[in-house]
Amino acid sequence: QGTRDHPPAQAALRERLLSAVVSCFKRHGAAAIDTPVLELRETLMGKYGEDTKLIYELQDQGGELLALRYDLTVPFARYLAMNKITNMKRYHVAKVYRRDNPATTRGRYREFYQCDFDIAGQFDPMIPDAECLKIVHEILTDLQLGDFVIKVNDRRILNGVFAVCGVPESKFIPACSTVDKLDKVPWEEVRSEMVGEKGLSPEAADGIGEYVQLHGGLDLIEQLLQDPKLSQHKLAREGLGDMKLLFEYLTLFGITGKISFDLSLARGLDYYTGVIFEAVLLQQENQHVEESVSVGSVAGGGRYDGLVGMFDPKGRKVPCVGVSIGIERIFSILEQRLEASGEKLRTTETQVLVATPQKHLLAARLKLISELWDAGIKAEMLYKKDPKLLKQLQYCEDTGIPLAAIVGEQELADGVVKLRDVATREEVRM
Amino acid sequence: QGTRDHPPAQAALRERLLSAVVSCFKRHGAAAIDTPVLELRETLMGKYGEDTKLIYELQDQGGELLALRYDLTVPFARYLAMNKITNMKRYHVAKVYRRDNPATTRGRYREFYQCDFDIAGQFDPMIPDAECLKIVHEILTDLQLGDFVIKVNDRRILNGVFAVCGVPESKFIPACSTVDKLDKVPWEEVRSEMVGEKGLSPEAADGIGEYVQLHGGLDLIEQLLQDPKLSQHKLAREGLGDMKLLFEYLTLFGITGKISFDLSLARGLDYYTGVIFEAVLLQQENQHVEESVSVGSVAGGGRYDGLVGMFDPKGRKVPCVGVSIGIERIFSILEQRLEASGEKLRTTETQVLVATPQKHLLAARLKLISELWDAGIKAEMLYKKDPKLLKQLQYCEDTGIPLAAIVGEQELADGVVKLRDVATREEVRM
Repeated sequence: QGTRDHPPAQAALRERLLSAVVSCFKRHGAAAIDTPVLELRETLMGKYGEDTKLIYELQDQGGELLALRYDLTVPFARYLAMNKITNMKRYHVAKVYRRDNPATTRGRYREFYQCDFDIAGQFDPMIPDAECLKIVHEILTDLQLGDFVIKVNDRRILNGVFAVCGVPESKFIPACSTVDKLDKVPWEEVRSEMVGEKGLSPEAADGIGEYVQLHGGLDLIEQLLQDPKLSQHKLAREGLGDMKLLFEYLTLFGITGKISFDLSLARGLDYYTGVIFEAVLLQQENQHVEESVSVGSVAGGGRYDGLVGMFDPKGRKVPCVGVSIGIERIFSILEQRLEASGEKLRTTETQVLVATPQKHLLAARLKLISELWDAGIKAEMLYKKDPKLLKQLQYCEDTGIPLAAIVGEQELADGVVKLRDVATREEVRM
Repeated sequence: QGTRDHPPAQAALRERLLSAVVSCFKRHGAAAIDTPVLELRETLMGKYGEDTKLIYELQDQGGELLALRYDLTVPFARYLAMNKITNMKRYHVAKVYRRDNPATTRGRYREFYQCDFDIAGQFDPMIPDAECLKIVHEILTDLQLGDFVIKVNDRRILNGVFAVCGVPESKFIPACSTVDKLDKVPWEEVRSEMVGEKGLSPEAADGIGEYVQLHGGLDLIEQLLQDPKLSQHKLAREGLGDMKLLFEYLTLFGITGKISFDLSLARGLDYYTGVIFEAVLLQQENQHVEESVSVGSVAGGGRYDGLVGMFDPKGRKVPCVGVSIGIERIFSILEQRLEASGEKLRTTETQVLVATPQKHLLAARLKLISELWDAGIKAEMLYKKDPKLLKQLQYCEDTGIPLAAIVGEQELADGVVKLRDVATREEVRM
């Protein structure tokens, strides 16, 4: 349940999509790593907040307690700590596992690919963070998915908001996961969850409400830097200062047009410590309505400066920032678009079919195809002793093979091959 | 235990290796499919003989009983049956899982990659089977792994041997897995396992011994076709007839020089029904000794005409033949060879580092690198506001970046960039 086979047409589309993402990661100088699908259970515990219950656990095999990885970020942090690496730019494309309620029509599965790019190391502020946003911008532009916006916020600003509104520190993380729902439900519902389930005071909730409904650009940053309450909070001030720097760098990259500083963005995971971001596609729901509607997140990430330290025996920290591309949702969109266009994606790359027009010529076909393979040419033949020529040409048309190399008795006698263009039916002897 | 992280150098080597294997599979017209790492437990049960105990099972999550796939063949058969596909040529490169005693120095892990190519469908005899052997020959030649031999046998011949030696049919499969050990232990040990553990009569074991120590080519096939006992056994006769046909096709492919018809080859798995094969690398153990020594199997496969039917509610059969490339062992060999050569594999593909020779030029670097990325050029910069030029050039040398694009105050004023060849130190303004 919640998993799927990928038949050839899907596998081919997926290969095309992954290769676009990976070539962007390589363009930014990342190296690949690979880690096991299995991790020790204890590695994954306490990293995913309320979602820890979604981790797939393996049966005790009389040795180690194992689980399937939930994302690629925690294994990366574990890898850095284990190998005492303090500086690395890596990408990783692999499957992750969540024992979630699958919603396969919306592209939510229990097994799915993630494509992650992360920069680990102690650097000057916001330069790697800006590159992560540039990468999201490049990929979404490259894939031509239509209009999008990248929402940006900072956990320090959010914590500052909670603090100045009188929320006790122990409730920051629960408050965070409630705020995170603002992109799906209206403020009133979020407010009532805060007061009801999370036990915040109504005054605190109202105070938070005034902040988290704000979004804008550099102007909003400046405004909040002047905010009498928020500007008194040390971490919030640092966060706002970094946000200003980030916008400066993004201006040099020429991408601020797609960036929105959005105080409602919280992201669910425990491990973020600084900048957080999320890209959503915008869709004109109705031609007559001006407003555009979000069709969901297709990339997200942020800064997690404390995660690597959790795996180091001495707690040594390695600051990290990274982005994960939501390949499954993008795949669903591309798949629907391909279907609508009626375009048929070839599932093989075969260049030529080796064919014979008469019987008793299997040996000639085997000899010729062997020569073609040895010359590096992608070639197929039908696995029949005496196939009909029509069937052979039909196979070319069905599978998109552009050429047929035909050897008949005459060609054998003359020491030539007849090369036929399947589409135009033109033939040359060679 | 028994798993490993792949750091960038290994991941890069693996990518190179997998791409060689995949391009061979594509050259033979195969399409890619992908299936989940998780399968229903019942799908995997009863397919792997004694090795069923090595399957990783997941905890009951209050729904389905799941396990990690053990190979890619059973999921392929399940896929064909589920989708009622009767005709397909596919490849699949993915990880599989075995709760085995890991022997990591010999490249045996609990999580490892398999690279499978299979042809499903009802075709004329031995044409797809011959192609599988051609593929093994192409890949091992292409990877320049040194001398190798591909051992070929047929389960029908082996069963014929057991039958004419008086083994009851219920003991064919146990006898098979004992014979399979002949490449590792001498005949005496195999014989005593047969008589002791497997309960064969000493006469039967001796009879088997006379056959399974034979190996050769077309001559041996002819000899066995005349064998007074074996030629009386219907299935053995069919197997020998097909083996003769196979050698005919392999002669047309020009690869019989590396093929050995070897009656000791049995292969452990239950599901084989016809031709089986295994490729082993040969290594000159000692310059003074003529004999060459096997360093283990690097590819294997065979025909399994009954497996798909096990997953079809009506038991409809789809004949299949396929090959699995033992990528981990090959990887170990290539890794050792790379280490011995002292060659350093680049882990990134960065073409140019954007550098500045003076302070306060971060904005110029960000602007230039953004233009390069947008033009599809693989570019990096140091994540420092004011890095020293020497450090920037050192980074190029350490990571193999061939070019540095330098913007200083003078270049900015002149509206040019200085492009420096890191190795030769030549510079051009452009």
